Amino acid sequence: MNIVLLSGGSGKRLWPLSNDIRSKQFIKIFKNEDGTYESMVQRVYKQIKKVDADATVTIATSKTQVSAIHNQLGDEVGISVEPCRRDTFPAIALATAYLVDVMGVNPEEPVVVCPVDPYVEDDYFEALKGLSDQAEKGEANLVLMGIEPTYPSEKYGYIIPASTDPVSAVRTFKEKPTEEVAKEYIKEGALWNGGVFAYKLKYVMERAHQLIDFTDYQDLFDKYDTLTKISFDYAVVEHEENIQVMRFRGQWKDLGTWNTLTEAMEENVIGKGVVNETCSDVHILNEMDVPVLAMGLHDVVISASPEGILVSDKEQSSYIKPFVDQFEQQIMFAEKSWGSYKVLDVEEESLTIKVTLNAGHSMNYHSHLHRDEVWVVLSGTGKTIVDGYEQAVKAGDVITMAAGCRHTVIADSELQLVEIQLGKDITVTDKQKFELEY
Amino acid sequence: MNIVLLSGGSGKRLWPLSNDIRSKQFIKIFKNEDGTYESMVQRVYKQIKKVDADATVTIATSKTQVSAIHNQLGDEVGISVEPCRRDTFPAIALATAYLVDVMGVNPEEPVVVCPVDPYVEDDYFEALKGLSDQAEKGEANLVLMGIEPTYPSEKYGYIIPASTDPVSAVRTFKEKPTEEVAKEYIKEGALWNGGVFAYKLKYVMERAHQLIDFTDYQDLFDKYDTLTKISFDYAVVEHEENIQVMRFRGQWKDLGTWNTLTEAMEENVIGKGVVNETCSDVHILNEMDVPVLAMGLHDVVISASPEGILVSDKEQSSYIKPFVDQFEQQIMFAEKSWGSYKVLDVEEESLTIKVTLNAGHSMNYHSHLHRDEVWVVLSGTGKTIVDGYEQAVKAGDVITMAAGCRHTVIADSELQLVEIQLGKDITVTDKQKFELEY
Repeated sequence: MNIVLLSGGSGKRLWPLSNDIRSKQFIKIFKNEDGTYESMVQRVYKQIKKVDADATVTIATSKTQVSAIHNQLGDEVGISVEPCRRDTFPAIALATAYLVDVMGVNPEEPVVVCPVDPYVEDDYFEALKGLSDQAEKGEANLVLMGIEPTYPSEKYGYIIPASTDPVSAVRTFKEKPTEEVAKEYIKEGALWNGGVFAYKLKYVMERAHQLIDFTDYQDLFDKYDTLTKISFDYAVVEHEENIQVMRFRGQWKDLGTWNTLTEAMEENVIGKGVVNETCSDVHILNEMDVPVLAMGLHDVVISASPEGILVSDKEQSSYIKPFVDQFEQQIMFAEKSWGSYKVLDVEEESLTIKVTLNAGHSMNYHSHLHRDEVWVVLSGTGKTIVDGYEQAVKAGDVITMAAGCRHTVIADSELQLVEIQLGKDITVTDKQKFELEY
Repeated sequence: MNIVLLSGGSGKRLWPLSNDIRSKQFIKIFKNEDGTYESMVQRVYKQIKKVDADATVTIATSKTQVSAIHNQLGDEVGISVEPCRRDTFPAIALATAYLVDVMGVNPEEPVVVCPVDPYVEDDYFEALKGLSDQAEKGEANLVLMGIEPTYPSEKYGYIIPASTDPVSAVRTFKEKPTEEVAKEYIKEGALWNGGVFAYKLKYVMERAHQLIDFTDYQDLFDKYDTLTKISFDYAVVEHEENIQVMRFRGQWKDLGTWNTLTEAMEENVIGKGVVNETCSDVHILNEMDVPVLAMGLHDVVISASPEGILVSDKEQSSYIKPFVDQFEQQIMFAEKSWGSYKVLDVEEESLTIKVTLNAGHSMNYHSHLHRDEVWVVLSGTGKTIVDGYEQAVKAGDVITMAAGCRHTVIADSELQLVEIQLGKDITVTDKQKFELEY
């Protein structure tokens, strides 16, 4: 089975754990049997591999997520990197071209496209396989998954099938309705549209060539920023006559809000925290080093990270986005391909961060125009290169770098250091990268 | 007027803003007209000086609070430092001896003793003056303030006066009652005992000499740790026949819990925070650099500091202490005589802190046996002395100090630095102090 996982945007609805560069799908909230935690993307990837060990998994995402994906899934997973955000049709066209032109998959093969963040059981992935098999038959150009509704939700679009058969032609699509209208739809036998579908690769390649002037994957990638923003629904689904829908009646949850996310948590507290005996239905997700104490609360989610602290009634938490949009904020924590960093202190003319480099990894060789830097190694071993000069480093070593000087650090074992940036104009954009000259 | 303010213990009931070394009376929560904030101790001190500009104010407290008091009140205020905690009788005896022996106050003069943290208006301090004048008359050995109750509280002891006159003999004292019993007391004309009283200095000096074998203030100070813990009520008040009570009917609140403290706040948010429109009676006190967002909550207090995060129903917040006791925690922030420090990062074999030195101040000249240290100056100017070697320092300068090496930093302007401690056994007790040798 070929599968494309769409790994979406910034996920402000799960602030402060998600932000512009770390999306909800990477938050580790699901407890494994060994006591460690895994993220949505790790859970989904594991589930796919369990159902089909040979599945070719490609994640369609933006550049900012590539490091987090490699850190969490390793290097085996395919990534179709969108140079910028252009909605789902260009993203799916690019991922399809990636499979054909880069991965060399036969255009006659089917592919299943689904979001990266459903909270589902293994039967869902069995259903994806069914979807793939159905697409392979070629009875229709597109085969959608129709999820049997458990309540008249206002959050989803609806698919009205022509029959109650397991696989049926689609009679019509309906936009997100009110609750009353949703009840009517459900009486008519409507199914939720969870944004999951399968097609033969050549089908989307053809549609893409009709709508976009490009030669191959690389050409599409190069002109990606010139493409029009348009959803796959508008560009393809709504114009397609030959569509089938396949029913799915297993568990399916969208973990897009704190309300639904906390429902999926096995424990009430992740991180340091105490919920006293007068609380009910209180969840704490705490990434800070200090404890959270909750007393006398009901139906409340508390989430603390280096970005901020949310305390919300669970129902209300769905309306978080406009409030988070008003916080103009520095990114306080980020995962990178080489490890991670955390902002420790912000002053007018200095910024102090802690950098953790994974064993065997290094930063880019780079310099800054407008700031000096000091590194103090906290733990681990490795070497620094400063203007071409190599030096072995260990805990307690201090390296000073004036503005303009080129520098990097290469970790032998996991290496932690405090980096102090000093200058009147400290910005993330003040960075020039170089090839190492040795 | 001579006044002794009793500045009490650790105040865990206002965690995470107060801790073992920073008590509630130093938290800046009252907004001034110019937009700055002042603490309970600053508010009370200002109120005293407004009513009696010549008042001699002495704060009886422990060593750990001396820096915070000087930082908030300046150097004019007298401080009677208790070498250790020995309850209120030894504390009041020591402060009384301090006034007589150190400050040279005539033992015939009266003194008023009251807690440092009442939330009151100016009429309260007028009443203290009345108390002082009444004590000076010498009609009784002790004159207590009796606060006219506004409800049948279970939190206070009660004084039953012999008459309803403004000044009356005391018929009897009652321990903290149940609400039902409190109602009975109030019918009998009982008054709250707020722990405020006045006496002539010589009276307590005599009682102290009867109960403790000492010569003068210095002797009492030196043997303070050998004294028995006993309250002023048990040691003095209960054995005294000749006591008067003076009524006070103005506003009087004890700000000992989050519930009462938030009632006294003029705004709902101190620090970075947003309370959305679906909240009611929500207060945020946030000392962190990142925002707190509250949604859909009612009657809740949220407090965040480098020590931790409290989210509590206001009523429930009175029962915080046992939960805080279970947090074994490093002090993450402290005010010192020379400035302040804040813990930025804790690792197994390193500790990173930010130190702010006030202009003209310096650390002790000191060394550590088991850790190396690195200073990186962030801002300001001054000089460092390392093993006797002086060096002018400014932003960006780095100073490394191996274990055993003696060091200090002296600030010309306000000076900020990051201190990185490195070693296998980092403790606050690993510190040897020295006289500067120049």
